[in-house]
Amino acid sequence: MASREITYSVRVEFGDCDPARIVWFPNFFRWIDAASRHFFVECGVPPWHELAKSHGIIGTPLVDTHAKFIKTASYGDTLHIHASIAEWRGKSFVQRYRVTRDNPRGGSDLIMECDEVRIFAAQREGDVPGIRAVVAPEEIRRLCE
Amino acid sequence: MASREITYSVRVEFGDCDPARIVWFPNFFRWIDAASRHFFVECGVPPWHELAKSHGIIGTPLVDTHAKFIKTASYGDTLHIHASIAEWRGKSFVQRYRVTRDNPRGGSDLIMECDEVRIFAAQREGDVPGIRAVVAPEEIRRLCE
Amino acid sequence: MASREITYSVRVEFGDCDPARIVWFPNFFRWIDAASRHFFVECGVPPWHELAKSHGIIGTPLVDTHAKFIKTASYGDTLHIHASIAEWRGKSFVQRYRVTRDNPRGGSDLIMECDEVRIFAAQREGDVPGIRAVVAPEEIRRLCE
Amino acid sequence: MASREITYSVRVEFGDCDPARIVWFPNFFRWIDAASRHFFVECGVPPWHELAKSHGIIGTPLVDTHAKFIKTASYGDTLHIHASIAEWRGKSFVQRYRVTRDNPRGGSDLIMECDEVRIFAAQREGDVPGIRAVVAPEEIRRLCE
Repeated sequence: MASREITYSVRVEFGDCDPARIVWFPNFFRWIDAASRHFFVECGVPPWHELAKSHGIIGTPLVDTHAKFIKTASYGDTLHIHASIAEWRGKSFVQRYRVTRDNPRGGSDLIMECDEVRIFAAQREGDVPGIRAVVAPEEIRRLCE
Repeated sequence: MASREITYSVRVEFGDCDPARIVWFPNFFRWIDAASRHFFVECGVPPWHELAKSHGIIGTPLVDTHAKFIKTASYGDTLHIHASIAEWRGKSFVQRYRVTRDNPRGGSDLIMECDEVRIFAAQREGDVPGIRAVVAPEEIRRLCE
Repeated sequence: MASREITYSVRVEFGDCDPARIVWFPNFFRWIDAASRHFFVECGVPPWHELAKSHGIIGTPLVDTHAKFIKTASYGDTLHIHASIAEWRGKSFVQRYRVTRDNPRGGSDLIMECDEVRIFAAQREGDVPGIRAVVAPEEIRRLCE
Repeated sequence: MASREITYSVRVEFGDCDPARIVWFPNFFRWIDAASRHFFVECGVPPWHELAKSHGIIGTPLVDTHAKFIKTASYGDTLHIHASIAEWRGKSFVQRYRVTRDNPRGGSDLIMECDEVRIFAAQREGDVPGIRAVVAPEEIRRLCE
């Protein structure tokens, strides 16, 4: 069943671009990560530091990402990141993104697409920094529908 | 036929980590992009601004990336990014990365893996910033073997 | 004579914060640089790649910056960056920023302040990448008043 | 009395540069922050997450920074960041940086200079993320001499 789709918009800035005057690609992942969190915030999921207290959940780190870069973008552009949950699995889920830019001649251009596998993570006990996956709480899944 | 493998090492810094005290994942792509360019530099390929003059090539932008995150890393770690060319295609190529960390008990831990499709790009003429793919020059391919 | 004041707003994201769960300070400079360019855009100054053709100006690089960090910020915050030109000098100018956050109990909190000296820069001729300062065009100064 | 001087070296990468093909300045602050922590590590000060347990100290956040940008740098450059403690004050200290680049014709070029005021910070109790300054422990000061 399809989840909600939430749109997060960003302005591309001069410093986001490289000497070829196009967005330096790691910045797309910066924006996608913001869109991922924004998705949950817009669905009504509490911020991670509150979930840490109530559920021990500290965030939704990435375990796998696959991105296609279709058109370049540059500073002055506004990009729209459309985020949804494509699939819930046991301890992981697939978050899907389509990044578009309004086309002045009408419609919008697809800039990039990305499918991520993320987990709900709890801090692992002990001195070594680390995380472990936990099952997505049912109430969080319901908020995203 | 296998290409050379070149290793690029980075120190993980405090500011590379997020509130969960692990590397914020877009930074892995920052380092992988550096390892990509470093691969060509170590193989003897001239810097992009020289290739821009001789071949019109301004860099090797990404068209597709697929990454798996296996273990977390944190500040104080040194990571080794092992880069190679897994495949040459017409106007694109597959660049492969394995990111490892020395294990104090011997051997090394695999932190992440990534396969990228990149192109050799030339600036597209005209007012709109953009790029187009060009066939990888034979002399560049030979340098990477 | 005072210039216009232009406000640029940013959302603080999870990845902008460090393991102490506060904004990692280089990100403030990222936002301030965006606010600097945004100031000129809002005043009607053409984008740098157009000015490069008409005036040879490629941007307004920084020569000196002085920032005070007054309160911390964290993800979930929206910050307002109020930018103005405090002073025009021959080949340089002082751009001033006040970063505030709305206080839920009324008013706003001052998060940081910054005074920058910037120049209007042209690409220096020759093989070595470099820049040189040029006098701020009178029409640009007038647009900012 | 002068402190030790510790040098931290960084390679400038393609993605660190902006469309003017020079280092985008917030990256200098990224490297300076790394050099700041590196200074303490090289002096034998334990990592912040250990000091958090022994002294409640979570890092050395910035309260004031003043930087001068003297020469530009670009990708392919290796920069050397020379860090020292210029002054100890009650709950703060001045950390000083000189960023140089080897000149192929001999000697080295000064790229930028920066003076920072930092504090030793402890996490503030309560729900609101925040920090408070603590007096620099005498044993840490001694390690830096």
